[in-house]
Amino acid sequence: MSTITDISVFDVRFPTSRHLDGSDAMNPDPDYSAAYLVVRTDAEDGLEGHGFVFTIGRGNDIESAAIEALAARLRGRDAEPILDDMGEFWRELVHDSQLRWLGPEKGVMHMAIGAVVNAFWDLKAKRAGLPLWELLARMSPEEILDLTDLRYLSDVMTREDALAILRRSAVGREERIARLKAEGYGAYTTTPGWLGYSDEKLARLCREAIADGFSQIKLKVGADREDDVRRLRIAREVCGEGYPIAVDANQRWDVAEAVDWIGELAPFDLRWVEEPTSPDDVLGHAKIQRGIHPTPVATGEHCQNRIVFKQMLDADALRVLQIDACRVAGVNENIAILLLAAHKGVPVCPHAGGVGLCEIVQHLSMFDFVAVSGEMDGRVIEFVDHLHEHFVEPVDVHDGRYWPPQLPGAGAQMHQASIDAHLYPDGPVWAEAV
Amino acid sequence: MSTITDISVFDVRFPTSRHLDGSDAMNPDPDYSAAYLVVRTDAEDGLEGHGFVFTIGRGNDIESAAIEALAARLRGRDAEPILDDMGEFWRELVHDSQLRWLGPEKGVMHMAIGAVVNAFWDLKAKRAGLPLWELLARMSPEEILDLTDLRYLSDVMTREDALAILRRSAVGREERIARLKAEGYGAYTTTPGWLGYSDEKLARLCREAIADGFSQIKLKVGADREDDVRRLRIAREVCGEGYPIAVDANQRWDVAEAVDWIGELAPFDLRWVEEPTSPDDVLGHAKIQRGIHPTPVATGEHCQNRIVFKQMLDADALRVLQIDACRVAGVNENIAILLLAAHKGVPVCPHAGGVGLCEIVQHLSMFDFVAVSGEMDGRVIEFVDHLHEHFVEPVDVHDGRYWPPQLPGAGAQMHQASIDAHLYPDGPVWAEAV
Repeated sequence: MSTITDISVFDVRFPTSRHLDGSDAMNPDPDYSAAYLVVRTDAEDGLEGHGFVFTIGRGNDIESAAIEALAARLRGRDAEPILDDMGEFWRELVHDSQLRWLGPEKGVMHMAIGAVVNAFWDLKAKRAGLPLWELLARMSPEEILDLTDLRYLSDVMTREDALAILRRSAVGREERIARLKAEGYGAYTTTPGWLGYSDEKLARLCREAIADGFSQIKLKVGADREDDVRRLRIAREVCGEGYPIAVDANQRWDVAEAVDWIGELAPFDLRWVEEPTSPDDVLGHAKIQRGIHPTPVATGEHCQNRIVFKQMLDADALRVLQIDACRVAGVNENIAILLLAAHKGVPVCPHAGGVGLCEIVQHLSMFDFVAVSGEMDGRVIEFVDHLHEHFVEPVDVHDGRYWPPQLPGAGAQMHQASIDAHLYPDGPVWAEAV
Repeated sequence: MSTITDISVFDVRFPTSRHLDGSDAMNPDPDYSAAYLVVRTDAEDGLEGHGFVFTIGRGNDIESAAIEALAARLRGRDAEPILDDMGEFWRELVHDSQLRWLGPEKGVMHMAIGAVVNAFWDLKAKRAGLPLWELLARMSPEEILDLTDLRYLSDVMTREDALAILRRSAVGREERIARLKAEGYGAYTTTPGWLGYSDEKLARLCREAIADGFSQIKLKVGADREDDVRRLRIAREVCGEGYPIAVDANQRWDVAEAVDWIGELAPFDLRWVEEPTSPDDVLGHAKIQRGIHPTPVATGEHCQNRIVFKQMLDADALRVLQIDACRVAGVNENIAILLLAAHKGVPVCPHAGGVGLCEIVQHLSMFDFVAVSGEMDGRVIEFVDHLHEHFVEPVDVHDGRYWPPQLPGAGAQMHQASIDAHLYPDGPVWAEAV
């Protein structure tokens, strides 16, 4: 038995707004940030669990306060009952009768739970000596199912449905693990597409993306229609016919405007249209999907929980599902969402970028390929070449593919020096700025 | 011109769990709480703006931290540009490009914005020397519309639709104000229905509710089916045939279970079935509404924003709409929701109770009657006879009706002595307990 001796919480912020990296139609000046925690126990192994919520600046303190509120109730508890039954731990945090009033299951509180859950997954994987994707991929179908909470999902996917998916994909796992290690997992890049870049920089970055082997690019749209047409024309010319180009509107439109605007962009052959409207608007997305068929709607990075994803799938409101490592309540809820997507036969192409989202979410896609959907053809994980140097195991992306992480853990661990330098507001990076 | 000199934030909690008041199937031991703020300016009038988020205990500190984060950006600003354009102030807070990552428009951050917005409404109404309902009811249709943000709503209600509703109800306002003052506004009571009470107490409280003139009662259900049947039989026997009895499941069920369970309760003639499942599940509510027709589904106290309400109405997922004073982003967003309900012809019967929810939400229903829907027949505001003594102007409920508040302001102001006594964790009420 070991005791949770300490949970430290850090408000870590990177001053990305100084260079306009990451600017889009809704987020003109983000400072990529992490409300970050480290779990320590008195076990002799000295292992730590790291997790965080990604935010884009202001509000990272509120997210840190929410993590601290959870941490206060965990310090001093035994670690093993938590690590041995992560499904029960998830339910304890999510269904806390008082805390759920703050959601339920959405926003600041739900994301904080995700960070805490993920930190314990990091610790569990380190104790097992495995990267998270492999730890999960070696569990039995019943063990995986016990991690999930299927409450509120049964009108679309029953427990039996979910178990059938996992049992089907229990066959051939070793072959898929071998294939994953040999071939990697597809990646696409958003690097060329930020709104803050000039046409010349866009064209150059498109050429670089293809030279680097990426199988898709994505452009931000939605701020100005003429700009969008001009930038898409440039990208299409550079990339050539047939090369997958997605666009991302970052929730910019109402329904009719989305259908109309996308209609003007559709001749450039769009792989998908991402976040055309409010992430809460299931019926709105369904109307847009009907209006722009056969161009697929993609969404998910702001979808608050499995219940919204269930409806999106039920209503044919999306045809590409984008999980996010830090939006829902951690690994457990993302497994439920992967199961829903597999049940409906919809491909999962995760949102990533920000700070550390690539490092974490790759574990989920690789686990999905090995043990849930069994598919990876045509599926791609977003990649942005940014801030990876702060992580103990930065993503290994080369030849346009993600290559499986090898170190034990869940991928969230930053270097202590990076945390210290970027503490807000007193770390040296910020103290200098002020 | 006046300057915002101070915004004070208080974590106020009432130890209601000690007596099991307010227990239901999902909330066994709530401590009714308020993350509370007071806005002060250097104007000579000395007027203050009070507002709060209602929570049920743990997490009130997180909500307070979110309010503090907003307050920090408002101190030192001029008050008049805010008070003179409350629509613009709402948009500034809700669409803050960094803070919206924490939602967008949901959970801790959105509710905190609601508290801040409502505190400024309190100040504005005090400066005008009017109770909030009357301040709003005396605005022109165009002024009211400028308060709202109709973004993401246009596929169901356009700006023209909303303006048409307001212009129609601009006629006859004085007569409706007179009628409101003469007749009050209907109330129903949840007092008999808490799960923690014995059958004898239930029967006695039903008799008292009728004797007190309430036109409806509501019972909590969803924990145990046999208990529900027995308690409904008692209530129906005491109240008599035809007396409206609603039930509230507090999100307890999945879709099929809800339809099945309600089927067993329907013979007791239910006025409505409240919160049968997750408040996020628009399509689930629609399936339940189809399954239990003609019994109406009611929901809203946990609906995160106008976009979810839009879909609930669009999908015939509810037939009684329950606004809440502290869930969405304040008065402005509730006006948008009242407009949506009026546009679809669905009655609004607000959620209240907790601490102070009755005091605030009555203003919205009265404004709705005078200037939006123009209707109040068959509409009722929830009433729980609890904690009103802490407010400067407690609700005036007698003869089973809410009577219009008369003091200037928005209804949220607590006595300073109540705030001081219930400060968490250092106020005397809590210091004694620990």
